[in-house]
Amino acid sequence: MSKTTKLARHLETLHINNMYKNDFYWTWDKTDEELDAIFTVADALRDLRERNKSTRIFDSGLGISIFRDNSTRTRFSFASACNLLGLEEQVLDEKVSQIAHGETVRETANMVSFMADVIGIRDDMFIGEGHKYQKTFIDACEYGYRHGILEQRPTLVNLQCDVDHPTQCMADMLHVIHQFGGKENLKGKKVAMTWAYSPSYGKPLSVPQGVIGLFTRFGMDVTLAYPEGYEVMEDVVKIAEENCRKSGAHFKITHDMKEAFKDADIVYPKSWAPFKAMEERTRLYQKGDKAGIDALEKKLLEQNAEHKDWACTEEMMKLTKDGKALYLHCLPADITGLSCKEGEVDNSVFDRYLDPLYKQASYKPYIIAAMIFMAQVKDPVSKLLELDAADTKRKNS
Amino acid sequence: MSKTTKLARHLETLHINNMYKNDFYWTWDKTDEELDAIFTVADALRDLRERNKSTRIFDSGLGISIFRDNSTRTRFSFASACNLLGLEEQVLDEKVSQIAHGETVRETANMVSFMADVIGIRDDMFIGEGHKYQKTFIDACEYGYRHGILEQRPTLVNLQCDVDHPTQCMADMLHVIHQFGGKENLKGKKVAMTWAYSPSYGKPLSVPQGVIGLFTRFGMDVTLAYPEGYEVMEDVVKIAEENCRKSGAHFKITHDMKEAFKDADIVYPKSWAPFKAMEERTRLYQKGDKAGIDALEKKLLEQNAEHKDWACTEEMMKLTKDGKALYLHCLPADITGLSCKEGEVDNSVFDRYLDPLYKQASYKPYIIAAMIFMAQVKDPVSKLLELDAADTKRKNS
Amino acid sequence: MSKTTKLARHLETLHINNMYKNDFYWTWDKTDEELDAIFTVADALRDLRERNKSTRIFDSGLGISIFRDNSTRTRFSFASACNLLGLEEQVLDEKVSQIAHGETVRETANMVSFMADVIGIRDDMFIGEGHKYQKTFIDACEYGYRHGILEQRPTLVNLQCDVDHPTQCMADMLHVIHQFGGKENLKGKKVAMTWAYSPSYGKPLSVPQGVIGLFTRFGMDVTLAYPEGYEVMEDVVKIAEENCRKSGAHFKITHDMKEAFKDADIVYPKSWAPFKAMEERTRLYQKGDKAGIDALEKKLLEQNAEHKDWACTEEMMKLTKDGKALYLHCLPADITGLSCKEGEVDNSVFDRYLDPLYKQASYKPYIIAAMIFMAQVKDPVSKLLELDAADTKRKNS
Repeated sequence: MSKTTKLARHLETLHINNMYKNDFYWTWDKTDEELDAIFTVADALRDLRERNKSTRIFDSGLGISIFRDNSTRTRFSFASACNLLGLEEQVLDEKVSQIAHGETVRETANMVSFMADVIGIRDDMFIGEGHKYQKTFIDACEYGYRHGILEQRPTLVNLQCDVDHPTQCMADMLHVIHQFGGKENLKGKKVAMTWAYSPSYGKPLSVPQGVIGLFTRFGMDVTLAYPEGYEVMEDVVKIAEENCRKSGAHFKITHDMKEAFKDADIVYPKSWAPFKAMEERTRLYQKGDKAGIDALEKKLLEQNAEHKDWACTEEMMKLTKDGKALYLHCLPADITGLSCKEGEVDNSVFDRYLDPLYKQASYKPYIIAAMIFMAQVKDPVSKLLELDAADTKRKNS
Repeated sequence: MSKTTKLARHLETLHINNMYKNDFYWTWDKTDEELDAIFTVADALRDLRERNKSTRIFDSGLGISIFRDNSTRTRFSFASACNLLGLEEQVLDEKVSQIAHGETVRETANMVSFMADVIGIRDDMFIGEGHKYQKTFIDACEYGYRHGILEQRPTLVNLQCDVDHPTQCMADMLHVIHQFGGKENLKGKKVAMTWAYSPSYGKPLSVPQGVIGLFTRFGMDVTLAYPEGYEVMEDVVKIAEENCRKSGAHFKITHDMKEAFKDADIVYPKSWAPFKAMEERTRLYQKGDKAGIDALEKKLLEQNAEHKDWACTEEMMKLTKDGKALYLHCLPADITGLSCKEGEVDNSVFDRYLDPLYKQASYKPYIIAAMIFMAQVKDPVSKLLELDAADTKRKNS
Repeated sequence: MSKTTKLARHLETLHINNMYKNDFYWTWDKTDEELDAIFTVADALRDLRERNKSTRIFDSGLGISIFRDNSTRTRFSFASACNLLGLEEQVLDEKVSQIAHGETVRETANMVSFMADVIGIRDDMFIGEGHKYQKTFIDACEYGYRHGILEQRPTLVNLQCDVDHPTQCMADMLHVIHQFGGKENLKGKKVAMTWAYSPSYGKPLSVPQGVIGLFTRFGMDVTLAYPEGYEVMEDVVKIAEENCRKSGAHFKITHDMKEAFKDADIVYPKSWAPFKAMEERTRLYQKGDKAGIDALEKKLLEQNAEHKDWACTEEMMKLTKDGKALYLHCLPADITGLSCKEGEVDNSVFDRYLDPLYKQASYKPYIIAAMIFMAQVKDPVSKLLELDAADTKRKNS
């Protein structure tokens, strides 16, 4: 029996009826079984591709990507996922660093979606705005579909908002699952999601938030560590706590990086901006207060600089479980002595983990494709079996 | 019998032999039956897609789009049309606001068209130049094809020039046909194509020109209304008059917006720039007279501001037939109190017509696809029947 | 027997086992038979397309293009080649005029290549850097493939580096082969690869280098002519000399344009920058010495201006074989009195050769497609025969 067939059989055991025609905003909107389905389909699509089986389920159709912040890797992951399923990617260029008005979004959403099966949006710049933009956009598509304007209701894939970064964190998690030999081995493992110093300013909070919101569901003890003042959204902290309560694991916040690294099985040291400061920034942008924005940037860079000791050094790594914790990063990292003078991680540490880091990233196209697949395919079990049985080759050479 | 089959049977009754391997510049180049063919094929392609039938007639091939003015909706419509037929869109970026030289155009045309089946061009900025650019481009392709340089002679689709905007006006018209329940119900209907105030400057004339050149062919009484000084091209006015003479309808020019709106069945209030001023602008650009351009812009904005009363208000709408004329706009509109302080249309009017406005726009991808289809397919009747009969699914899920 | 079948039969006689899974950096890395294979497959793919046969060997997959210098024609040629084989082009935008760091390249290479079958790179700006960038990029992909990060090892196609421009020169050569009625007619023909004056600055050396490195392999006498100070890379001169030694032909360097044109069968007059100056420029960029860069540009423009008599005039053309040498150019040319006041070529000369010039360019998409084909298809002979025998149409209309 092929790997894909086994995965399809597993998919059959899951409760996944609500996934068809549904969007993917945040992992905590989804049940454990729904997340399991994404992982399962991602693995199956990868297996099919490795065996040179075509996974085209579309003969034509568009996947629209909207990046309201620069992106290379997420953009290519989205384009790859679309292509894998037979959709052509089209990029909608919108003015970056501008908060969109609802009415304009509503119109644009309909105007670009006439033949769109998927919409992927990255909008992580402004606290309180990113998710709202995605919701407004897709509500407008829903409206257009119901009123006979759009032939189909496109699926939303959240490619990063101000709250969550589900395609990243799901890829991270699938990587962890494979590294540890299966979900069943994760119980009791210790995860350190920690802040780290970066010379740049205002990095999104969606990764730490996404990680604590997702990793706490797998029975792992998750510690969130940051210098005082670098709080994340309270709502997501509550979700992490609630997840742990259910799974019997522990969630802890500390201001001591060493405490988080101590005996950790997994470390995810990464810079982010303080939530309150990002709220302030959104207000300044809304007012168009350029001087205020500049002053805030200066203040935040100074604040960052007080915490240069928050770095994933060789010394810090020695504190982890057998000195060999799995090091995660969403990339690109600020690497001390390589991409910057002082940054998030020692060059020697980063370099030692190059293979697993790239492997971690390699799951993202499949996670995105799986999200599209589950939203677009009515009977995903049969479809996987059908793709597995067919002899249509991806590369016919 | 399927809708597509019925439409194919209708197509069979039309004289359409000249459409194969022909370009689409202006609607008035085409016979009534040829326009009918475009509408018919657009409806058929939409029907096929709604029934999840593949409409790919290309296994590979490129559709090149050239936008010499910014565009989101026309660009996505063109990309959607290409994708629907199996062509991959490639965008040729040319420097905007620069009048191209014939020799450069000739070379570029050949260099980008080696595998191009379709060329879509938008060049509406300069009076006397837009159409010329398209003609020069496609003549160069014709030359290349005849001299063994290009394997195929690509089809031109005019995505807006200085004279006409056929993909827009044909989509507008197909929308009108469906709203009124068929072409046979249009006779005697009153259309108001009117100027409206906008705080921005230099909007193209191709929409009002395209509308009076096209709508006058359907037996409708068309009134063109604008403040004195906002004349459109005389050549197109003559075409509108000639059309009406043939169809027994009336074409009228007035400088009173109320007169145009009175008892109108259809209103299309939209800003444009005076033809003479646009001619002047082209000359200034050709001379590179930056100061002259700035002075002209200032003058035109002041001239516009004298006519803020030319707006599609609730009061104005009450003048129309039963107060319920069909409101048309090519989008985006300048909406009073929403996208600008004072603009073309009241927010409440615009909002009430949101559904039909989006629906109007939704025909454009199909109109473009139909133009390509009629130029590329030798026996379009058989091909439609074949696509209808085949069980190749667009989305195989 | 079809042309493609004949070409496939010829391909069968060549030693081409090393081409599968191999990259294309420089023509001098390849054997004569390997180059013959590229020409043969290019002709076959063109024949198949002319006969409306589908040449898709990919059902899905990406072709990534990276242009570290502006490009229209090479970009469209690459996009056309990818499309012809069934790959979707995705453009990676990198900051132009910036020398990339190895570590960044390594990461980017893996991040964008998860589903890439082909990588096309143009990096010709900096002497000593362009080839290095391509090598670093593809080595990183090789690493990723071996370590289970990439599902497939993408093929590199050099779209122009600091050393060679193989897709251009191979297209030039295929054009020459067809113009002279076959490779067997090239022996003893005289080629003038000469510098010509251009008002612009710093044009790449890859074309003259590529031409002398390639054309000397076909038994032709190649003269490289340039004003003193406009030397090209010594390594490539040695390759040209070695090629001639083997083929029994002559390679000569002169500083007299007339000597080169005298009795030439083929002339290729084209501007380039002095090698030493380009080395200097690379160093200035690496140091970020803006003032030095500006001073160098000024100096080079002045140096160019001393050689305005190096132009392909009607007078010069009269010196060639029967006054009718085949005029080659990679386009765009600097045309005297048309695109500039004084340039590389007289307008009347250029205009007379328009057809062959465009034809020359038209081979590039097929050359690129052939490079991909030979690297991706295990049994290219069988595959060509199979494509020829199948009745899958490219355009099904």
